[in-house]
Amino acid sequence: MGIVVMKFGGTSVGSVERIRNVAARVIRERELGHHVVVVVSAMGKTTDHLVELAEEISSSPSKREMDMLLSTGEQVSMSLLAMALETQGYPAVSMTGWQAELQTEKVHRNARIVSLKGEKIKARLDDGNIVVAAGFQGITEDGEITTLGRGGSDTTAVAIAAAIGAERCDIYTDVDGVYTSDPRYVEGARKLQSIEYDEMLELANLGAGVLHPRAVEYAKNYKIPLTVRSSMSDEEGTVIEEVTSMESNLIVRGVAFESDVVRLTISYEKAFNGSLALIFTTLAKHNIDVDIIVQSIVDGTRPTVSFTIKKESLSEAIQVLEERKAELGFHVADFEVGLAKVSIVGSGMVSNPGVAAQMFDRLRQEDVPVKMVSTSEIKVSVVVPQDRMIAAANALHDEFQLSELEVEV
Amino acid sequence: MGIVVMKFGGTSVGSVERIRNVAARVIRERELGHHVVVVVSAMGKTTDHLVELAEEISSSPSKREMDMLLSTGEQVSMSLLAMALETQGYPAVSMTGWQAELQTEKVHRNARIVSLKGEKIKARLDDGNIVVAAGFQGITEDGEITTLGRGGSDTTAVAIAAAIGAERCDIYTDVDGVYTSDPRYVEGARKLQSIEYDEMLELANLGAGVLHPRAVEYAKNYKIPLTVRSSMSDEEGTVIEEVTSMESNLIVRGVAFESDVVRLTISYEKAFNGSLALIFTTLAKHNIDVDIIVQSIVDGTRPTVSFTIKKESLSEAIQVLEERKAELGFHVADFEVGLAKVSIVGSGMVSNPGVAAQMFDRLRQEDVPVKMVSTSEIKVSVVVPQDRMIAAANALHDEFQLSELEVEV
Repeated sequence: MGIVVMKFGGTSVGSVERIRNVAARVIRERELGHHVVVVVSAMGKTTDHLVELAEEISSSPSKREMDMLLSTGEQVSMSLLAMALETQGYPAVSMTGWQAELQTEKVHRNARIVSLKGEKIKARLDDGNIVVAAGFQGITEDGEITTLGRGGSDTTAVAIAAAIGAERCDIYTDVDGVYTSDPRYVEGARKLQSIEYDEMLELANLGAGVLHPRAVEYAKNYKIPLTVRSSMSDEEGTVIEEVTSMESNLIVRGVAFESDVVRLTISYEKAFNGSLALIFTTLAKHNIDVDIIVQSIVDGTRPTVSFTIKKESLSEAIQVLEERKAELGFHVADFEVGLAKVSIVGSGMVSNPGVAAQMFDRLRQEDVPVKMVSTSEIKVSVVVPQDRMIAAANALHDEFQLSELEVEV
Repeated sequence: MGIVVMKFGGTSVGSVERIRNVAARVIRERELGHHVVVVVSAMGKTTDHLVELAEEISSSPSKREMDMLLSTGEQVSMSLLAMALETQGYPAVSMTGWQAELQTEKVHRNARIVSLKGEKIKARLDDGNIVVAAGFQGITEDGEITTLGRGGSDTTAVAIAAAIGAERCDIYTDVDGVYTSDPRYVEGARKLQSIEYDEMLELANLGAGVLHPRAVEYAKNYKIPLTVRSSMSDEEGTVIEEVTSMESNLIVRGVAFESDVVRLTISYEKAFNGSLALIFTTLAKHNIDVDIIVQSIVDGTRPTVSFTIKKESLSEAIQVLEERKAELGFHVADFEVGLAKVSIVGSGMVSNPGVAAQMFDRLRQEDVPVKMVSTSEIKVSVVVPQDRMIAAANALHDEFQLSELEVEV
C-alpha cells in the first residue's frame, strides 16, 4: 500500500466546515487504498491573531517565545482534523513537529530542516492510522521548538514524503495549479499539466507564489513528485517532476512578473577593489534581499553597479549605505522606483540562445524600455517600468505561444 | 538564593493587561532575591473556546486529541508571559510540560503525575532565567501529550516546587485566602492566617474550591508550604503548612457547604452479600462520584444503603442502576433531591468527641433536620434540606465562634 502525503494550507483548514471538507478529501484518498499523511498549517487567521497578542505585549518579542507561541497554531488545526477523521470512523493521530522528530537548526522563526527520520510517523501508519502532522514546526537537538518560516508547511510535507518514501506529495492550495502566467492579468494564461523542478524553482523565486522555493528544492533533491492542486475543487493540478516529456518541445514554459522593484545604482570615482563584496555583505547583514545585480565599467573611469531590491527595503538600504559611505568608498548612490520585473522561464532555453533575442525584440516592438537584464540557464529577466509590466507580460506570453494547448502523448 | 514557585490561574492571565500585572508581580518576587518559577494556566476563556471547536467537529472527540488541542492553551499564555518579562529586562524562558519532563500516567484528560525530575527547570534557573512553566500538562513515557484534569495547574506548581526544592509555593487565585466559611453567605466568615494540610484537604474535598485536593495532597507529601493569595491585591493570603501552632487551640477551623446533593437509597428484600461492592464499582465505572455512604440494616429483614451523588449525575446513575437491577439484586431504588451538605472541619476535633454532639444540638435548636451524617477524624458532615443550608452554615459558624480573631503568638 503506497503512501501519499497531502498538505493543506491555512485557508483550507480555516473553519470547522473546511476542516470537514479536508477530512472528506483525505478519506477519499484513503479509500483509494493509500496510507495517508496529512500536513496542516494553522487555521486561517490564527497566526495573525497570535502575532497581534505578542505585539501588544512586546515591541520586539524574542524569537524563541514567538516560536513557542506560533507553533500552537498547527497543533490546534491538526487535532481538530484528527477528530474530524475519527468521527467518520477513520483512526487518526495528530503529531507535533517534535513528536514526528522533525529536527531543525538552532535558529528561531526561520529554521531549516536538519533531519527527519520518519520512523515515528511510519509506526503510526503501520498501526492503521491516518497521520495528521503539524507543518511549519520542528525541534532542535536541545529540545527547543522552532518554526520554519515562510513556506514551512510545504517544506514539511515534502520532507515527510522523502523520509517515509511516499509515492507523491500533493499540495492543496487556493489556486488549482501552476499557470503559464498570472491569469488575472495575462490573457490566455493556461494551467500547465506538468513542469520541471528547476522551472518551478525559477517561477517560485520569481514570486509566482504557488509553492515556496525551499519546498521545491527539497522535492528536487529527493525526487518527490509534487502536485499543486486546489483544495476547493476536484480539478487536476500541475505535477512538478523530473522530466516533463510531454511538453519538452516547448522552450518557454511561463511568464512571471513582480511589481514594486527598486533599482539602486552606486557610482565610484574610480575602480575600487573589494567594494562590491562589501556592499552586498553589508546589505545581507541587514536582511535586505538583493535580486538582480548588474555591474558595468564604462571606460574604466566611473564604475557603477546597479541592483534591485524590494520597495519596502528602500529606506533601510539607503540608510545603511549612507552611514557607511566612507568605508564602502562610493561616490553617488542613486535609486529609481516604479519598476517591475518580467521573466520568461523554461528549461528548453538553455539550448536555444535565440530566446533572449526574441524576447528583447518583442519588447522593443511593444515599446517597452528594458532597464536591466539578468539571465540564468532557464530564465531571462528584464526590469521594465511598472506601468508597462502587464503589457510586457501579455506580449511575451503571446510571443512564445503559451496559450496553445499542450500536446497529449 | 532560594526558589519560589508562583502559580497563576486562567483569570489572572486572562488578558494582555493582566499578563503584564502578573509579570510585575513576578519581577517583585525576583527583586526580593529569589529564583522564580511561574506556573500558568490557559488564558481565561481559551479552554472553553477550544472545547467548543472540538464539539463542533465531533460529539465525542477522542481524549488523546482533546489533550493535544487543550495543551495549546497554556503554551500561549506561558510564551506571552515570558515575553512580558523579557520586555522588562528580565531573562525568561517558557517550558511546556514535555520540555519540563513532567511525566504522567498513560491516561488522557485526567492523568496523574508519575515523575518530575526538575533538572531541566533547574538548568534554566541556573542560567539566570525566570522559568515560565505550563500548568495542567505533561507527557507519557511514549511521548504522548496528556492533561491533568481539574486543578491540574495547582498540582503542577506543587510538583515543580517539590522537584526543585522550592522554599514555598504561592497559588495566586481570585480569592485572597482560605476562609472559615464562604463570606458571601456566612456572616462573620474570616480569612485564616494558616491552616493544616489535612484541614485544607477536607475543605478542598468539601467544595471550598480554593485549591484542588490533589495539589494539597502533593504539598502535604512533600512538605511544601503552600500560600493561597489574591492575584489582584497585595493582601497576605493563607499559609497551608504542617502545624499551625498559633491556632491549635481552635477545634473547628471552618464550615464548608455544598448544594445540589442528591440522596439515593437502595433497599433489598433480604441481606445480599457483595451487592454493596458491586453497586459502587458499577457507579465508579461510569465515573459517577459517590460522596457520603451510609448503610443501615434495620432488624436484618430489609437492608438499605443510602449514598449521595451530585445532581448532574442523577439521570445517569438511575439508568445504570435500573439496567443492572437483576444483577445488583436490589428491590427498590429511591432518590431524594433538594439536599445540601454542611460540614465542620478541624484537626483539633479528633481529641474532642463532643464536637459532633455540639453540632447536632445546635442544628436541632435551629430546626434543621439532619438526613445523613458522615464523620472523619477531622470532619463531620451532615446532609440537610437545601433551603436550610445557609442557615445551618451560619449557625455552625456562630456555634464554634469562627468569627473571633486568631490569637497572635
